[in-house]
Amino acid sequence: MAVRLGELAVRFGLELNGDPDTTVDRVGSLVGAGPGCLSFLANPKYRRQLEATAASAVVLDAGSAADCRVACLVSRNPYADYARIATVLHPAPAAAPGVHASAVVDPGARVAASAGIAATAVIAAGASIGERAFIGPGCVVGSGAVVGDDSRLVARVTVYPKVRIGRRCIVHAGAVLGADGFGFAPDGGEWVRVPQVGSVIIGDDVDIGANATIDRGAIDDTVIEDGVRIDNLVMIAHNVRVGAHTVIAALSGVSGSTRIGHHCMIAGNVGFAGHIEVGDRIVITGQTSVTRSLQGPGMYSSTMPAMDAPRWRRLVARLRHLDALFDRVGRLEGDGDGRGTAGDQHP
Amino acid sequence: MAVRLGELAVRFGLELNGDPDTTVDRVGSLVGAGPGCLSFLANPKYRRQLEATAASAVVLDAGSAADCRVACLVSRNPYADYARIATVLHPAPAAAPGVHASAVVDPGARVAASAGIAATAVIAAGASIGERAFIGPGCVVGSGAVVGDDSRLVARVTVYPKVRIGRRCIVHAGAVLGADGFGFAPDGGEWVRVPQVGSVIIGDDVDIGANATIDRGAIDDTVIEDGVRIDNLVMIAHNVRVGAHTVIAALSGVSGSTRIGHHCMIAGNVGFAGHIEVGDRIVITGQTSVTRSLQGPGMYSSTMPAMDAPRWRRLVARLRHLDALFDRVGRLEGDGDGRGTAGDQHP
Amino acid sequence: MAVRLGELAVRFGLELNGDPDTTVDRVGSLVGAGPGCLSFLANPKYRRQLEATAASAVVLDAGSAADCRVACLVSRNPYADYARIATVLHPAPAAAPGVHASAVVDPGARVAASAGIAATAVIAAGASIGERAFIGPGCVVGSGAVVGDDSRLVARVTVYPKVRIGRRCIVHAGAVLGADGFGFAPDGGEWVRVPQVGSVIIGDDVDIGANATIDRGAIDDTVIEDGVRIDNLVMIAHNVRVGAHTVIAALSGVSGSTRIGHHCMIAGNVGFAGHIEVGDRIVITGQTSVTRSLQGPGMYSSTMPAMDAPRWRRLVARLRHLDALFDRVGRLEGDGDGRGTAGDQHP
Repeated sequence: MAVRLGELAVRFGLELNGDPDTTVDRVGSLVGAGPGCLSFLANPKYRRQLEATAASAVVLDAGSAADCRVACLVSRNPYADYARIATVLHPAPAAAPGVHASAVVDPGARVAASAGIAATAVIAAGASIGERAFIGPGCVVGSGAVVGDDSRLVARVTVYPKVRIGRRCIVHAGAVLGADGFGFAPDGGEWVRVPQVGSVIIGDDVDIGANATIDRGAIDDTVIEDGVRIDNLVMIAHNVRVGAHTVIAALSGVSGSTRIGHHCMIAGNVGFAGHIEVGDRIVITGQTSVTRSLQGPGMYSSTMPAMDAPRWRRLVARLRHLDALFDRVGRLEGDGDGRGTAGDQHP
Repeated sequence: MAVRLGELAVRFGLELNGDPDTTVDRVGSLVGAGPGCLSFLANPKYRRQLEATAASAVVLDAGSAADCRVACLVSRNPYADYARIATVLHPAPAAAPGVHASAVVDPGARVAASAGIAATAVIAAGASIGERAFIGPGCVVGSGAVVGDDSRLVARVTVYPKVRIGRRCIVHAGAVLGADGFGFAPDGGEWVRVPQVGSVIIGDDVDIGANATIDRGAIDDTVIEDGVRIDNLVMIAHNVRVGAHTVIAALSGVSGSTRIGHHCMIAGNVGFAGHIEVGDRIVITGQTSVTRSLQGPGMYSSTMPAMDAPRWRRLVARLRHLDALFDRVGRLEGDGDGRGTAGDQHP
Repeated sequence: MAVRLGELAVRFGLELNGDPDTTVDRVGSLVGAGPGCLSFLANPKYRRQLEATAASAVVLDAGSAADCRVACLVSRNPYADYARIATVLHPAPAAAPGVHASAVVDPGARVAASAGIAATAVIAAGASIGERAFIGPGCVVGSGAVVGDDSRLVARVTVYPKVRIGRRCIVHAGAVLGADGFGFAPDGGEWVRVPQVGSVIIGDDVDIGANATIDRGAIDDTVIEDGVRIDNLVMIAHNVRVGAHTVIAALSGVSGSTRIGHHCMIAGNVGFAGHIEVGDRIVITGQTSVTRSLQGPGMYSSTMPAMDAPRWRRLVARLRHLDALFDRVGRLEGDGDGRGTAGDQHP
């Protein structure tokens, strides 16, 4: 969609340097952009790319405007304003309202007239699909589940019975919301399944990545608060609570009953023990093991950076003797004291 | 479903303190329960919650009964007996027998009359679906695959050809059983696919979590023994064998041809090297790397707990010099000996 | 399919020791094989199994031929030649061409006459399915997506709009290609979605494992080059490039904009930071954190092997004092010098 720069400046409250009648119709990187492209500069280290860009316009901050030789939109938060303009240029495809002939919608389901139900989707009795919501091809929505207004289940999403999804959420393909929590009672060498009768409650404006899984609670619910962004292949176990506007990157797992605060940033492949409390505004680096409760705000890590393998192997071999090394140093210190004392006694 | 406490006491062989005509119709946590709820106390640290509970009845052990001010069912294993009673109060929805009109069942498939085949499920020629089994919406069952009596494929499960699933199993949404093992032969800088002609054999009473994957064997089969519980997003590679009643938590991966014993407890995000043997009754903590065979019983770990990030970074920097530190201490010890000897020679 | 050894020798250019009219019709391990089985010996440590095998024929190298008491095919690369012969004996099931009645193919999609579209597959307008390609049951192919000639989407694969898959690829069940990259701009305590308008480009002869996810690029494309093999549950983030013939094992994750060279071998559960460059012919061991760019060729590791848990816990406790230990050794060295100097001053 082609839009005049003047219109974008007014709509998003940005200062425009350049011809308001110039139009942009798509986004591009500073390096790859051509005429008609809108680009952005958010990180000063790319300023040299700015000087050479062939974009028709660039979103940038006031400090960079002088270096821009094409039109620019001056923003206090160029990346966020770029994102908003990009959403105008590349709108999500509007789902056609109505139910596809191949979808299977139980007569006992409530589907808003403005909602779109795609081919082969299956919606059970008692489910409720909100206004302008989209249930993509191959999705399964269980009995009593709720999908809020304007939410999109892209494709092949499974929503178990009674799960509640808020408004304006995006759930990517293959995600599974509300499978049974992993709860078993040991009894005579076997594991008795513990019925998982809680549900999953997802707030508004939540994103859930492809093939992520969020289990239903054992008794009470698993809760994902507003604005949370969950990446692909993340595991959220039963009775976890994730605070508002927290982001969790791919392949991270949160064990049962753990609570994560709001505005946290969890990198990829992080593991959380169960039954712990992680405070607000906490940052965790990739592949860290969070084994105990953490107070926020703060940054925590146990990321072990890769080394040249022979060197790493030597390090691991040394670590096996670290205990002994402490003892050796202790003895040396003792010896030193001994010798020192002895030295004092020297004539 | 409302049930009299007297009936539960008789059915599960529990001692009842309280009115046998009191009924419960659902479960609740000690804190959240209200009238009509059954709760449980399995961990003494929650005993103070017991004193304040509004549950109609609590399952607990003899030692806690005196502190309970509502009716109680006294058990030697309160959590397991709670689980059994919860299953009575919250039965899994009975699948209606029969094949949904939108399901695609090959005429060459054998489907028990008591089995339920849900909307949009696809069942290939030569597949066999047992008595009272349930094949949920969007599931795909390949040619020659077998689903045992009373097993449930909840939704969107893929069962590749010839895979055999035992009785009373639950397979959660998105799980993939029997995809090709990751086998390639290097040849002139490329990778030649090695046909994976084994299958996957799953015992009775096995649970498989959402989006978990269990690959078929290269020549022989991948085997999951009876009573194994596998959590979401777990990867079991080709030709692995997992012993009976072992539990494996989310995001763990077992490499090819590794054998894990029975009654093991594997935490989340654990990685196993290939071609190793892990004994019986072994416990592995979260995010551990199992790089060699381990003898059971025992607990093993390489979980590195998160620290405050600046402190962790300093530790990593120190580790890079650990090798040198050992040498420095060795020199000190040598010096000490030398000095010591010299000291002995002092007049 | 039964094949004469003489025919296999000619077809694959192998020397045959034995009767050319002997036939084999399936593969087997050296230990499990019986009459009619073809087996192989690629690792000398299994040579004793060779002596006892009941296989009808064995593929092996010249050095092992003397120990083989059954027919053998002598190869310079026994595992690769075994793989090729196994593909003859166990051909992938040929997909019947045509569109299943339950599939939903938009009239605006282009489907080759020789392609097979299975039950309940959904193909959107503008998608293109190549010659002899197979779109398995429950797959979803988005608008403008391309599936190349002879590629197979086994089942329940999601291909987002505009994603391009090359020729002779295999994509296993549950894989998701082209979901939105995990891109959000922080703004006033919330996260603004950044439209992900790039795509995913997959070369020829690529394998993608079950439930793996490859996200589309933010502006430019995510690229998987020819011959790459990606295992189950792997995450490839937006704008990553994976070089030709690289293999990535299960549960590994590559963060955004990272480039991995060609002919790399990445073990399971490895994490890559974003915006780094990993050279060609690099090997990474399991559960390693790749936090910075690495030059190839070479092997890198931060795999921490499991230990007996009490011993590991002691090690971790010691690590917390490693900083202090360095200081203590520094003091000892200082003391030693001091004493040494003092000693020199001894009469």
